[in-house]
Amino acid sequence: MPVLVMKFGGTSVATLDRIRRAAKKVGVEVAKGYDVIVIVSAMSGKTNELVGWVNETSPMYDAREYDAIVSSGENVTAGLMALTLQEMDVSARSWQGWQVPVQTTSAHAAARIEAIPSDNILASFAAGHRVAIVAGFQGVSPEGRITTLGRGGSDTTAVAFAAAFAAERCDIYTDVDGIYTTDPRVCSKARRLDRIAFEEMLELASLGAKVLQTRSVELAMRYKVKLRVLSSFEEQSDEAGTLVCDEEEIMESNVVAGVAFSRDEAKMTLVSVADRPGIAALIFTALSDAGVNVDMIVQNISEEGRTDMTFSCPTDQVMRAEAAMATAKDAGTINFAELIADIDVAKVSVVGIGMRSHTGVAAKMFQVLSAEGINIKVITTSEIKISVLIDRKYVELAVQALHDAFELEKAA
Amino acid sequence: MPVLVMKFGGTSVATLDRIRRAAKKVGVEVAKGYDVIVIVSAMSGKTNELVGWVNETSPMYDAREYDAIVSSGENVTAGLMALTLQEMDVSARSWQGWQVPVQTTSAHAAARIEAIPSDNILASFAAGHRVAIVAGFQGVSPEGRITTLGRGGSDTTAVAFAAAFAAERCDIYTDVDGIYTTDPRVCSKARRLDRIAFEEMLELASLGAKVLQTRSVELAMRYKVKLRVLSSFEEQSDEAGTLVCDEEEIMESNVVAGVAFSRDEAKMTLVSVADRPGIAALIFTALSDAGVNVDMIVQNISEEGRTDMTFSCPTDQVMRAEAAMATAKDAGTINFAELIADIDVAKVSVVGIGMRSHTGVAAKMFQVLSAEGINIKVITTSEIKISVLIDRKYVELAVQALHDAFELEKAA
Repeated sequence: MPVLVMKFGGTSVATLDRIRRAAKKVGVEVAKGYDVIVIVSAMSGKTNELVGWVNETSPMYDAREYDAIVSSGENVTAGLMALTLQEMDVSARSWQGWQVPVQTTSAHAAARIEAIPSDNILASFAAGHRVAIVAGFQGVSPEGRITTLGRGGSDTTAVAFAAAFAAERCDIYTDVDGIYTTDPRVCSKARRLDRIAFEEMLELASLGAKVLQTRSVELAMRYKVKLRVLSSFEEQSDEAGTLVCDEEEIMESNVVAGVAFSRDEAKMTLVSVADRPGIAALIFTALSDAGVNVDMIVQNISEEGRTDMTFSCPTDQVMRAEAAMATAKDAGTINFAELIADIDVAKVSVVGIGMRSHTGVAAKMFQVLSAEGINIKVITTSEIKISVLIDRKYVELAVQALHDAFELEKAA
Repeated sequence: MPVLVMKFGGTSVATLDRIRRAAKKVGVEVAKGYDVIVIVSAMSGKTNELVGWVNETSPMYDAREYDAIVSSGENVTAGLMALTLQEMDVSARSWQGWQVPVQTTSAHAAARIEAIPSDNILASFAAGHRVAIVAGFQGVSPEGRITTLGRGGSDTTAVAFAAAFAAERCDIYTDVDGIYTTDPRVCSKARRLDRIAFEEMLELASLGAKVLQTRSVELAMRYKVKLRVLSSFEEQSDEAGTLVCDEEEIMESNVVAGVAFSRDEAKMTLVSVADRPGIAALIFTALSDAGVNVDMIVQNISEEGRTDMTFSCPTDQVMRAEAAMATAKDAGTINFAELIADIDVAKVSVVGIGMRSHTGVAAKMFQVLSAEGINIKVITTSEIKISVLIDRKYVELAVQALHDAFELEKAA
């Protein structure tokens, strides 16, 4: 029988009532003839409670014990979901990571899945079970210890199971009903996309759209797993939600798929840096070592052997960046006049695989912003994305204007 | 190095502070040179929360899923205890049942331990760990599913580990500081016993002393595991608590070790039962099938082919017993005039291995009760125990009088 993977996140299994609602959706797919693998997260709040205890007990904790503790939340949900399905007369059993086994690396708290042997679960399907409920986010190391995949790891578990079992699709049930052209809270014309290409989803995920974890999208792209994002709180047709898929499966699409934005950006400028070979490597190695996640980087034209270097990072990392640069200046490794931090900026991006074959997207974006009187501070581009930094107070205006200009409210 | 087993119950690990206090006691034993195996329960309240969810989800639950869910509480405590010990610079790691592995039968929710291979934990001691923290109450079935041992199973886990590792002693840390001659709340002269024989402890446990689970005492007796019961809330010397041991290890002891009592007893009398061979078997099979735990049984002298049959059972099983007898009467299998239930009774027992060699204990007990004007309704005796049913209102008076008469406040 064809296999379907269904994943329910923490808010979708937060209470026994919600678990029941999720189980009903599983029952619908079983009735259609699927053998279903359900991946569950911990009931929302449970993982945070466990992490809190670990941190209070041991701030520099042994990650092996962290994993043994934190993985318990998913086990509880898996068992409760199995019981709920049994009450609905659907034959189901729960699986903990080590029982499958989900084989991972030994990188505790951030393990990577290495293999998912399908024998045990296939044998259970053959024996008459219609549903295997797997505790997400966890696995077992070569040493036989419990591992976890890091935050958001349940999405990755789901995609990995879909790949291992050649599932027809991997449905990610969450608290939103799909991927939108932009945040509906900022732009009322935002439209749910029926389909989006993996590459676009990747850009949106890394731009802060929190629906899917970047790593799970990468994995889905590599193994050609059809991902569907849909709401666990609504009755839905087979065509509900957003399908994340190969671009070949998208017949027609707009040039721009969506407008993304992030408000917690800061713009940092190192003024009058001595411009010599290797200086960029020095600066960004120092920042990386200090744990600063640098996003955009712009280097001005050099004049008289000196240049300005501008980069962006999350606002809560500004102090860390300043400390790292001050240390480097004191040590004489990086020579600059001053470091200017502008924390009132935001990043706005347009994303779309159509940009590859359509010219003029950047020009149009700049014209739209200019027409609204919005000054652009930094620009970066990739093959399918253009991002700009602007004053934070203009972010809603910019998003609405770009959404209108690219006519994202209309389907292709 | 010699191995010591230490077990901490739910109240002893109820908070992170209490886990720290327990860990300090472990550290003391490690400093003495022991390799320590710590058995932990779930933080108190956690198991009840999980059981509540299971019952709400599925009243007739699949015990395999129940076990997978309910066992998670112990795993959390084991990890937290490992982290706490590491913070104290004691090398420790946690073990879940399947990792040891604790091999059990497949009788889910009531599994029996079949074997505890010592290789893995011994290898971890050899590699430098000084403490193995094992999640109590759980194991793994031959089918690779998680099992639990039933309520109070952590005591049994502790004793089984002590037997498997030939531990010098098995220390049970709890919220009382030992075994008393009787309940100190009822008799202010109650005295903590330094030592008590396995047989006496078994009688006391089955009479309702809730400190140790009957099953764990049986196991300790069979494998000659020295059990010590002591408080996790007090600083203690090596001689603290009560040692439960072989009677050979008790040099001197009182004839009577303790006075036990149980308030929730009911006395049931089947009046004018047709007395024929096999009638007792019929009655008590019917009661057993109905889930009634019959304790004491007395049959009167038969007159003219009819007799009265009296038995005791917990008060909350009276309705069940009445229904079972009514059904049997209607079906014509048991013929009797009426069933009289007296629910205002209590059971008082004196227990002591010294009774084997001392006569007159029963006579003295009956005299003491008679002198207080307490009427005895039913009597049963075993080799080391005499129990009587009396009116419930006299229970405190009877306990105090017997404690005085047998001079239990004085050590042997």
